[in-house]
Parts: sequence; structure tokens; C-alpha cells
Amino acid sequence: MTNILRFLTAGESHGKGLTGILEGIPAGLLLTVEDIDRELHRRQMGYGRGGRMKIEQDHAEIMSGVRWGKTIGSPISIFIENRDWKNWQEGMSSESRHEGSIPPVTRPRPGHADLSGALKYGHRDIRNILERSSARETAMRVALGAIAKKFLVEFGIIIGSFVVRIGNVKSQVSGLNSQAAELKEIFDDTEESQVRCPDKAASKKMIKLIDAAIKKGDSLGGIFEVVITGAPVGLGSHIQWDKKLDGRLAQALMGIQAIKGVEVGAGFEMASGFGSEGMDEIFYGSKQLRNNGPGFYRKTNNAGGIEGGMSNGMPIVIRAAMKPIPTLKKPLRSVDIITKKPIEAAYERSDTCAVPAAGVVGEAMAALIIADALLEKFGGDSITETKNNFNSSRK
Amino acid sequence: MTNILRFLTAGESHGKGLTGILEGIPAGLLLTVEDIDRELHRRQMGYGRGGRMKIEQDHAEIMSGVRWGKTIGSPISIFIENRDWKNWQEGMSSESRHEGSIPPVTRPRPGHADLSGALKYGHRDIRNILERSSARETAMRVALGAIAKKFLVEFGIIIGSFVVRIGNVKSQVSGLNSQAAELKEIFDDTEESQVRCPDKAASKKMIKLIDAAIKKGDSLGGIFEVVITGAPVGLGSHIQWDKKLDGRLAQALMGIQAIKGVEVGAGFEMASGFGSEGMDEIFYGSKQLRNNGPGFYRKTNNAGGIEGGMSNGMPIVIRAAMKPIPTLKKPLRSVDIITKKPIEAAYERSDTCAVPAAGVVGEAMAALIIADALLEKFGGDSITETKNNFNSSRK
Amino acid sequence: MTNILRFLTAGESHGKGLTGILEGIPAGLLLTVEDIDRELHRRQMGYGRGGRMKIEQDHAEIMSGVRWGKTIGSPISIFIENRDWKNWQEGMSSESRHEGSIPPVTRPRPGHADLSGALKYGHRDIRNILERSSARETAMRVALGAIAKKFLVEFGIIIGSFVVRIGNVKSQVSGLNSQAAELKEIFDDTEESQVRCPDKAASKKMIKLIDAAIKKGDSLGGIFEVVITGAPVGLGSHIQWDKKLDGRLAQALMGIQAIKGVEVGAGFEMASGFGSEGMDEIFYGSKQLRNNGPGFYRKTNNAGGIEGGMSNGMPIVIRAAMKPIPTLKKPLRSVDIITKKPIEAAYERSDTCAVPAAGVVGEAMAALIIADALLEKFGGDSITETKNNFNSSRK
Amino acid sequence: MTNILRFLTAGESHGKGLTGILEGIPAGLLLTVEDIDRELHRRQMGYGRGGRMKIEQDHAEIMSGVRWGKTIGSPISIFIENRDWKNWQEGMSSESRHEGSIPPVTRPRPGHADLSGALKYGHRDIRNILERSSARETAMRVALGAIAKKFLVEFGIIIGSFVVRIGNVKSQVSGLNSQAAELKEIFDDTEESQVRCPDKAASKKMIKLIDAAIKKGDSLGGIFEVVITGAPVGLGSHIQWDKKLDGRLAQALMGIQAIKGVEVGAGFEMASGFGSEGMDEIFYGSKQLRNNGPGFYRKTNNAGGIEGGMSNGMPIVIRAAMKPIPTLKKPLRSVDIITKKPIEAAYERSDTCAVPAAGVVGEAMAALIIADALLEKFGGDSITETKNNFNSSRK
Repeated sequence: MTNILRFLTAGESHGKGLTGILEGIPAGLLLTVEDIDRELHRRQMGYGRGGRMKIEQDHAEIMSGVRWGKTIGSPISIFIENRDWKNWQEGMSSESRHEGSIPPVTRPRPGHADLSGALKYGHRDIRNILERSSARETAMRVALGAIAKKFLVEFGIIIGSFVVRIGNVKSQVSGLNSQAAELKEIFDDTEESQVRCPDKAASKKMIKLIDAAIKKGDSLGGIFEVVITGAPVGLGSHIQWDKKLDGRLAQALMGIQAIKGVEVGAGFEMASGFGSEGMDEIFYGSKQLRNNGPGFYRKTNNAGGIEGGMSNGMPIVIRAAMKPIPTLKKPLRSVDIITKKPIEAAYERSDTCAVPAAGVVGEAMAALIIADALLEKFGGDSITETKNNFNSSRK
Repeated sequence: MTNILRFLTAGESHGKGLTGILEGIPAGLLLTVEDIDRELHRRQMGYGRGGRMKIEQDHAEIMSGVRWGKTIGSPISIFIENRDWKNWQEGMSSESRHEGSIPPVTRPRPGHADLSGALKYGHRDIRNILERSSARETAMRVALGAIAKKFLVEFGIIIGSFVVRIGNVKSQVSGLNSQAAELKEIFDDTEESQVRCPDKAASKKMIKLIDAAIKKGDSLGGIFEVVITGAPVGLGSHIQWDKKLDGRLAQALMGIQAIKGVEVGAGFEMASGFGSEGMDEIFYGSKQLRNNGPGFYRKTNNAGGIEGGMSNGMPIVIRAAMKPIPTLKKPLRSVDIITKKPIEAAYERSDTCAVPAAGVVGEAMAALIIADALLEKFGGDSITETKNNFNSSRK
Repeated sequence: MTNILRFLTAGESHGKGLTGILEGIPAGLLLTVEDIDRELHRRQMGYGRGGRMKIEQDHAEIMSGVRWGKTIGSPISIFIENRDWKNWQEGMSSESRHEGSIPPVTRPRPGHADLSGALKYGHRDIRNILERSSARETAMRVALGAIAKKFLVEFGIIIGSFVVRIGNVKSQVSGLNSQAAELKEIFDDTEESQVRCPDKAASKKMIKLIDAAIKKGDSLGGIFEVVITGAPVGLGSHIQWDKKLDGRLAQALMGIQAIKGVEVGAGFEMASGFGSEGMDEIFYGSKQLRNNGPGFYRKTNNAGGIEGGMSNGMPIVIRAAMKPIPTLKKPLRSVDIITKKPIEAAYERSDTCAVPAAGVVGEAMAALIIADALLEKFGGDSITETKNNFNSSRK
Repeated sequence: MTNILRFLTAGESHGKGLTGILEGIPAGLLLTVEDIDRELHRRQMGYGRGGRMKIEQDHAEIMSGVRWGKTIGSPISIFIENRDWKNWQEGMSSESRHEGSIPPVTRPRPGHADLSGALKYGHRDIRNILERSSARETAMRVALGAIAKKFLVEFGIIIGSFVVRIGNVKSQVSGLNSQAAELKEIFDDTEESQVRCPDKAASKKMIKLIDAAIKKGDSLGGIFEVVITGAPVGLGSHIQWDKKLDGRLAQALMGIQAIKGVEVGAGFEMASGFGSEGMDEIFYGSKQLRNNGPGFYRKTNNAGGIEGGMSNGMPIVIRAAMKPIPTLKKPLRSVDIITKKPIEAAYERSDTCAVPAAGVVGEAMAALIIADALLEKFGGDSITETKNNFNSSRK
């Protein structure tokens, strides 16, 4: 769990909706429903999404913690209605009188929580697992992350993401050695791509690949990059394993559905070279990122903005690898959990490629972690107080 | 932080020693100093270590929590003396009368916590940072992890690790699609290799590469794999982001010094293929790993033993990428934190390649996480009680 | 925070409603809206409540985590609509366009969070504090606690509460030295009293005292007792300060609005006597509380069921002192936070005496703590698994 | 657990010693062994202590986290040797070869953790419980609390304690309605009393009562008061149950060995009166406690410095009730845990009255909680940074 900023989400994929509570955002932050809906909308975009995305058009309702356009310091609760609920009122009812109104799911899908979840929780109907393990839940993470993003903007911290690989198509653009100005451009280009990839040529190839996968009834994974610009020096700490910022970000990203790998900066590539090749030397002068007089800076950023478990003032760059969605039209072999007989895995309507959306979820999770680390260092119960602390520490 | 098993470490690299407290291990576990020293010894091995390893020969002293060879349920505290302390009694003294007895370190080393740490904590002597950020601290993690490993063995859970890459040399052996029996062999072969790599041919090449790096005064990184065999189905959970076992393991491994990437199962490779290629289909019968009647099993393990944030009964396979140690004989450019003038980074005695040791640290961290998740699911205040719960849940 | 059972509440007193998330209840628990509404109703009862109680008739809506009458293991979210919301849609709107639709509260009420809260969070309108600090929030604690109570019943653990003092009127009934059978009777008698006091004579005097207070426009505090029967030996632990069950219960009860004191067993009285007087001697035989063969038991219960930070098998008895509600018709002197001029404190509609209701909140908080401690000891992801562990440990 | 300041203690009563780790104290705090030893000495004082106090003369060894007289930001570890260890090297050895070197304790003492602990952890030798449940452990809490106290002094926050009751003897002095200047005097008077009671007449009577108890082989409890002066407005929060400062303090004090009750301000007494009697009205002007211009203040302090779960700028006043030490020379009836036969409880050397010492432990626990809440609000990684934030928020 995070330390200062606490949050929990709840809700099933076809239930009434998703509920989230976020506690610890200082009072006085300007916040509107549009701030949240904009991010929800970004999550729903992306070439290769299934039919559900059209149904949804997610909308956040602020249930508490915000008054007259500003946070008041109390826990913020958000509700996102499931538009499809009307078709599931009996199947997902909380009342026992609806028991049996839809048949149980007994065929676990490989690659999902289905089998382990059913065994762990003692269920004979896998729906009791898949409804919560579904990536639908990430809509609430994006909503809560949108609040964290809005908070971070007050401190000049901007978080963006883009796709760097889908299947075997690799983008040529990375934030790794870019400065803040270039990153802004990359973020802008990303929003114009249907696959959220700022490399136009790669973008086209990715779309073609997705089309091919759709035709085959197959699915695709990929890699996205989350970049955090403007983070001050010293978020996270070297003093204890669980205070390290890279570890906290790694948990946050690995904890997103279907993510199988996370790397910071040059990541796995650094493992292959010599030490003399990949270090980011230290300079001093006015070239640094922020406009408040001379400071320390680097010309390279192989460390991805984190050294010794702390932010070092350079853009924080993390990449996450997403496996292809394991729900395929060509079904996989599985076993019925009741009869123990071989069967074909259940098919639930699904996306062909969700990497663009996953990047938006990655931004949200990163925002929550960075906001938590920022509050840990600077404290403050109101935006004014936190800003004062933030500014005075930078002198 | 973990949930049931709580631990904190303390201690500076050249201070009196390292202190660790581990709370939550049930009573009645057989535990000796040798159980811990064996792991400390494994951490100190590995071709390419610097001179310090010869000084150290770490030894754990059990300060509490164990009586007459068994844990008693109270917090276990461990002390590991720094053998070099006698030379640092003034330089690292806690008393103000020794202030200034050694000159301050003012030249931050790129790739280390040095600069960010000094700025964050307001130090003018970088020694106040580097003494704690040093990988020396991992000795205590290994000591505490040794206790967790001993605990897990009671449940048939064995954790091993081996090197799969050093620099550009790649091993051909991976635990990814191995069954428990083969893994045992791999673990055994590993202990016989000077670089903790079970692939003999690769092992030789790695040693040669390290020799070349030593000659150049350069350093090398690499990749190690941690494999957990025998974990029951259902450790971790899909219900909340911070309950997912993969996320918790990712934090634990990314939080080790110099680690820049973590992947589970086929990891980053899964991002490149089609969904139809990498799924682990589900079967039922007597081929499963444990000898208690027929069960569900898989023939492949691309998921690395974790689906939906839960262990699925297959071996858990994680890989971590370590960057080359950034302390080089050929010094990097840096800036004096006091004078702000360009200088060359300070050189502290260091290893050429620490990947074999890092694998042992990875085992320790994984053991602590798995033990925590196991206690979360099965509870218990004594080994007998936890075992009863464990066994009855497996029926 | 609790360890296994995590929960957060959100919501303002005159906002849309209250939101709560409770995570960690095993799957398979039978749970209906009525189970929760019954407790919400008990909280709303009690002689001496203000007008609002009539408006409310709280009703819980289960938003997630329960399907077809059973928990499924995922987080349970609850929403309790504020019936009065229609009159506050602008005053408590989250949208900036409603800013200023009602005048700010600038007169802090002594005895409330008003002044400290406004200073801490930087508010110029105290409504931004009082809406959250209001005891209205305890409705959600009662709802979540109702789930914990239902869970505990599965293990034979029953939690009740009753009033032992209102103002200067003291009840002659205490659970301190009662056995389980008598306690059941006490609980039953309590539900029949308008002030939730099982002593009929005292009950009448309390009502008279409340009538007098209403007439004067004054308010009354009191003391309630929470009793937990059937708790097994060994919840909580002596091994670390924050594992002690008495400390955890003390935080939970002291954290209820207006509570100023908490005691366990004979509590403050024990401070006055000699050691030879108050100890609960230990016996062995068949007189013990549970019907599973002979066991250890005590004839007295001055310890209130907790020794060394652990439950000892006797009923757990805790008392909490509630101060009189500080909102009085005869206003107190205060200072306007904007003008800094002396004024009379704002009057918000309020109760005359809320001690009966506070007892119900106390039950809820105790239930959450006990359920957390029980899961810590026995583990389990389904009711079946937790019960197996619970039963096997009792042999 | 606390949030920013984390700490764990370890160690058995007759083991090698006590180990403690405290993490989160900002860098740059002046700290000496004497700062800690002074508090350890205060804990060992007090009329009515048993023989052990003479043996001990506790001394803290700083093992890490402090260099040249200042904290450096890393975890501080402390070791307190048990002077008696030489007599227990086999009886409390961690090695199995010493098994059976002293006979097991099988007679549980009523009022202690003995019986519940043995049943919970499955021990047949109660020594495995009593060694940890012993109040010896509080020496380490005092050591860690001494660091927190030193930290708080930097912010003008002073914590003291004194005895207000021993057995039936009540002191006439309370901090409840005293201003800071008077409190200083009370603290000074306390240090001159052998029973840590600032009321000289009561002091004498208490000593006489203790003498009587010693003669009878009996023991005495009592009540102590902890007072925190100089705490700024707004520590803790009303927004969530576990953020409330009174609840956190209640857990910390109730979690001390033998404490059975905790109250804040007028506490239980407030339950008896009318609302119109006990409120602390609010004034504005220059009478407030601190010398930085006019502010809000109160003339009374029945709330004990906490309203709505937040500090309100007045002295924080908490009282804790300690039961008489349950180890009596006239033994209590009990049952052998192995033979199940009635016996007399084991007698371990003990104090007659430990209330004066318990007050010092109370100060330590309060200091840790207040320091945690202060860091939560003001953040900061160095004393300079935290102070800047603290000072700028007070304008």
C-alpha cells in the first residue's frame, strides 16, 4: 500500500459499477468531473478494442471530497456506472433470489485468474473471479490517477505514455534520452495516433498488424513507456527496500492486468553492456530542466531518472510489457472445474490489442505513486501548504 | 511493506554492523546460525568480486527470537558485524568528538544514490548517503531471507536462482519450462559454477568476459533468474492492485541495488508474439507437480507461475536485470557538490561483476514475499498450526 | 490501519451519501442488505436523538463484492444515500458553478473539529470540515461493521453493547463478570430499552434526565460497554506494541466521534486496588465457555478478556466514555475565523444524547478489529477454509 | 503501525539484549547516547522497584543511523545489553545444544500473557512467552522514544509525565487546565519525587502505601498523566478513523504492559456532566501559548488538547490506568499447562509498583506518535527542511 495517499477500488465488470476511494489529496485542488472523464476517455481509445468500448463511454460521478470545484481534504469517492448493468441485473445481483439466473462459468481460460482464483476462493462458478479480475477494474484506477495527475500538475509534474511496441512492430521513438521540451511534443504526437504511438510509420504498421490479428481471431501484446517530467530530486529513498521509488513504481505497473515485465531507463539493455558505456555523467550549469538558476544536470538518461531508489531530476522513464490478451476466438484447451473433463476455454468478448489503453492505466498508477512520494517528502494539508514546502525546498 | 511478515534493516557499510528485525515467523521453526551463514556465504561467492569479500566472511549473530534451536514467535533480530569496523571507528563513529576525523566525500558517483541522496537529505558529505545505499545492506536481507527460506521448506517450497546472462554472454538454461525435478538439477549445477550459471559453456565464457573487464578496469551487469518451486495455488490475489503477487515480487526485486528491470515468466518476449502462441493450456491428471492425487497442470509455463496476480501451482519464474556496477577505475565526469566544479567521480573499492551475488539477494527477497503471502492465506502462530491449515486446504 | 481487513469510508454529512469499501472478507459468507440495514436501524434508535434521525432511515446499497446472497472475495462496497441530499444539491455540489450558493460557516463550535480543521486544511468555510467530522460518518462504519459481525457469527463470536451511564445516572448491569448465557440476556434486555440500557430502573432515570436536558437545551454524555463473547484464545499478540488486541480496540473506540476515554475490563478501577484483589485466577475443567470438552477457565473477568495483549477466552469487555455533544442551544463563546471578532458558536441541528447510538458504532468498530485479528491468526480465503483452520486449531 | 516513522523492537527479557530500529527521523538531528541513557535512567527510577533495577543500569549503544553526533537519515538501530545475560547464556541460548538446561515454566501466572501466549504459540514452556511479554521490552520503547523526544524539542514540543494516583492515594496536581509555564514547573517537581508525583503531600502518602504493600508482598497500580506542550494545531485528522490523533495515542498507551484504561482531557468525567459544563470556549488575542503574534486560544482544556481527532494548540493531556503488577509473593491459584493439575502460579522477581516507570514509557510512546503525526503534516528529509515547513505553516 502507499503511505500518505491511500486508495481502494471495488466493483465487478458487469456489476452496478466501480467504486473508488482516494484519501490524502490536500485541500484546495481544483478538480472537475471533466478532469477525470478526459482520462477515462483516453483509456477507452485505441485501435483494436472490442465491442464493449462502444457501449461504455465511461463517466465518473464524484460522490464526496470535492465541493464547489475544489478538494476539501476529505476522502474523494468516485462512482463509475456500468452502462451494461441493465442486462446483468439478475446475473450479477447481490440478492440470493436471483441465484442461478444465469448458468455458471466452469471452463477456466488459460492466462487469466480463472482457475487459480476459483481454487483459492472455493468457487464453483468462475464468474465470481473473472468479474473482478477483468481489466474493467482499471477504469477506476484511471479515475483516481486522474486526480493524482491533476495534483502533480500543480508542481509542474507531467505524466504521459506512449506505445513503443505492438507485436513485432517497434517504434523508433523513446523518451529515454529526450529533454522535457521534446517530451511534450512526443506526448502531443501520441494523442493523434490511433495506437497511441508517436512514431507515424510504426503507427501505421501497428494498425496493419492489428487488422491481421483481428482477421485471424488472434490477439497482440506490446510495450508501453510511461514518462514523468518535472519530478524534483529526492522522491523515494535509498534507506529501506520498500522506500525505493523504482520498486514502488515496479509494483504499481506490474500490478496492472496482463503486465509481465517492467524496466526503468535502459532496463534490460543495461545488463548487456559494460559499465563504462551506460552511466549518466553529472554536470553543473544552466542546462538543467527547470528555470530557477543553475543546477546539476545530465546529458544522458540511461538511469531513467532514478538512482539509488530516488528521483534524480531527470525525466523518469519506465516501460512495461503487456502479454497478448489471452481470450482468443480460436479457443485454448482447458478443463471443466466441476467435471474435470477436457473442454475448450470459455470465450468472453474481448479486445484484440489493449496496449494503448494499458499505457493510460500505467500513467494513472505512476501518478498515484509519485503523488504519494511527493506528499511523503513535502507534507501539507492544503495545496498552498504543500506548494510552499515544495518551493522552499528547491531554493 | 509486507503484511504479516514485517522486517526492517539498519546499518552502514563501514559502521559497526548490520541490524535486522523480522517479525511474524510462527513459533517452532528449527533455525540455526548455520542456516543463515550458509546463505551469507553464498552471497559472498561469485567470480569477479572485489577485495572486500575476502575481508568479510559474514557471520550472523541471532540476538533474539530463537531459543534452543527453535523460533519462539517473538521478533527475530540478527546482527552481522562489519569485520572492517576497526578501521572506521572514528570515521563512522556516532560521537561528535570524531567529527572531521576523515575528509568528506564531495564527488558524487554517477549511477549511485550519491547526488540525489545528498540533495534530498541536505548532506555536505556524501559518505552519509553512500554508507547506507551500498549493496552491503543486502547482507542483512539475505540473512532475513534465509529465515524465510527455512520456513518455506517446511511447506515444500524451494527457492533457487542462477545467472542467465553476464554482459553479452547468454546462458542456454532457463527454469521457464522446466518441471520441479529438472529445476533441482539446475539449482545443483548452479552451485558448482563460479558465476552461478548452470550452463557450463556459458559459465566459461562469462569468466573470460569478467577477466577482460577486470583488465580494462570496467564492470559488467547481467540477468539472474529466481525460481520458486512448490508454491501452492492461490498466493497473492486479483482483488486489489497491491495484493497481486507479481507486483509484490516486482517491488522486492526492483528494490535491490542496481536492478533496472524485472519480468515474470516469458516477460518482455510475450509482448512480441501473438496471443495464440504463448498461453499455458490447462490439463487435468496425475502429471501435476505434487504427489497428492490427480490435479490441474500445465505443460508450459510462459506465465511464470502467476496468472491474475496469483500463483497457479507451476514454478514461479522471475528474472531481474542488473546494471553494471557504476564504480569504475576509469572515472566518470562529475561535479563537486560544494565547489560546483567539474571533477572525476570518487572511486570506492568495488566488484567487477556482482550478478551471481545479486541472484542470492533475489532469492532472499522472493522468500520474504512468498512467506508473507503464504501466512496471509494460511495464518497460524506455530509451524504446526500453519502446516495443518496448509495441508487441510490442499485436500 | 488494520492488517488483513482493510476499509476506508468517504462522504460528507449533507453530500450525496456515504461510500465505504471493505476488503478481505473471505468468499462464501451469506450476506443480505437486511443484515446491514438492521444495524443501521439500531444506530438510529435511542431516546434523545434530534430531528435528523427521522429524516434518515438509512438504507445500505451493496454496490459490489456480493453475488446471489454471498460474498465472493472481492472488495465489498456500500453506498448509503443521504435522504436530505435534495435540499443540499447546490450547497454541497462538487461543481464550481454552485460556489457561494449558501453562506460560509465562519463561527467554529467549541468541542468540534471546526477550528483545528479549518486551520489545518486552510479553509475559510468551516462547512468543509464539519461535513466530514460529523458523526454522520459513523453510519458507514456501522454498515461495514455489520458485515464483520455477520462474519464473526460464523465462528460463534457475538458482539453486543449497552449503555452503563448517561450523565449522573449509572446502570447496575455490567458484562464484566457475566458468563456467556447471562450476556445473551443482557443483550436482549438492551434492545428493549429506549436508551439501550438493560437496567430497567436506570433506563427510566436516564430518560427523565434526557427530558430535563432537552428542556434546558443542554446535552448529555455517558458510557457504553461493548462485550464480545465467544472470541477464541490468542487474538492479538504480545510480541509488538501494535499487535496488542487491547491497543487496537482502544484506537478503534477512541477514534469514534466524541469518545474521550476507553477502558478494558475493570479498567481505571484496577488502578486503585491492590494486586491481590483483582486477578483472575486460572482453573481447569468443564466450566469453560465452550462445549468442546474440558479447558482452562476463570471465575472472574477483571482483565476484560485480554491479558498480555491477547484474548484469553473470556468475554472481552471494553467501556468507552462519550462527552456530551458540544452543540448546544445555549451557544458557547467563540471567534469568527475571518473577522477574528468574538461571536457565539454556530448551531447545527443536533442530538441531545447519542450514547445509545455510539454503543452500536462501538460494536461495529470492535467487530472490524476482531475480524481482522481472527483472519490474521486463522487465514483463509473462503468461509470454509477459515472455519476449517479455526476448528482444527481448537482441538 | 505508524506511517512515516516506523519502528520495531526485538529482544527477550533474559536474552542477550534488546534491539530496536527506528526509521524516518530526518537527517541532521543532534543525538548522543546520553540523550537516550538519560531517559533509560528515568525509566529505572521510582520507589517500589524490584531488585532487577539495581542490576540493570541500562545503556544504549547506537549501532547505526547516527554519525558524528547527528542523524544521517538512515534507520537508527539501538542495542541495549541485558546485564544479567551472563547468568542466562544457556537457559536463553539460541542453540539447540542447550535445550533443557533450565526447567520449563509450566505454571501460568494470572494477569499475564502466560496462558494465552502458550496456547496461541503452542509452547509447553511458558518462558518462551514471558520473556517477550515482560515489561523489560519497554526499555527499548523508551530508547526509541528518547530520539523522538529529541526531535520534537526542535519544534518546541516538550513531553512530560507524572503520577496522579497510586492505589487509593490521589495527587491534587493535574496538567489538565495548566498553561505551558506551570507545566514546566510540574515537570520539574516530578523529577524530584521518588514516585514521580509533583504533589509533595501525595508523594509521601504514596511511598507509605508502597511500603505497606512491600510488607504484605502485595503490589499496586495507579494512574499517570502524559502531557505534550507546544504541539501545533492540526496534528492528526478527522477524515478517517485511523488518522485521529486521540485514537493513535490511545493505541500507543493501551499497548503498554499492564495498562487497562486511557483517557484524553477530562475523559471519563466528561461522561457524567452536561454539555454546557465542559466545553472549552474559543478566544482570540495574545494570550495564546506561543510568542508569534495574536492567535486563537482557550482558557480551559477539558478536551485535553484534541478536538475532532486533531491537536488544537492546547497542551495534550492523556491519562493511563495501570493495573497492579500481577506477580505476587502470595501466589494466585492456577493450573499446570502440562499436567492440568491445580497449582500456585510461578513467582518471578518483580516490582511492587511500576507506575512511575510506566509514565516514562508513556512519554516515549506519545513522542513516537506525535513525531509521526508531525512528519505526516510537515514532511521533510532534514531537520532544516522540516523546520522550514513547520515555520512557514505557522505564519
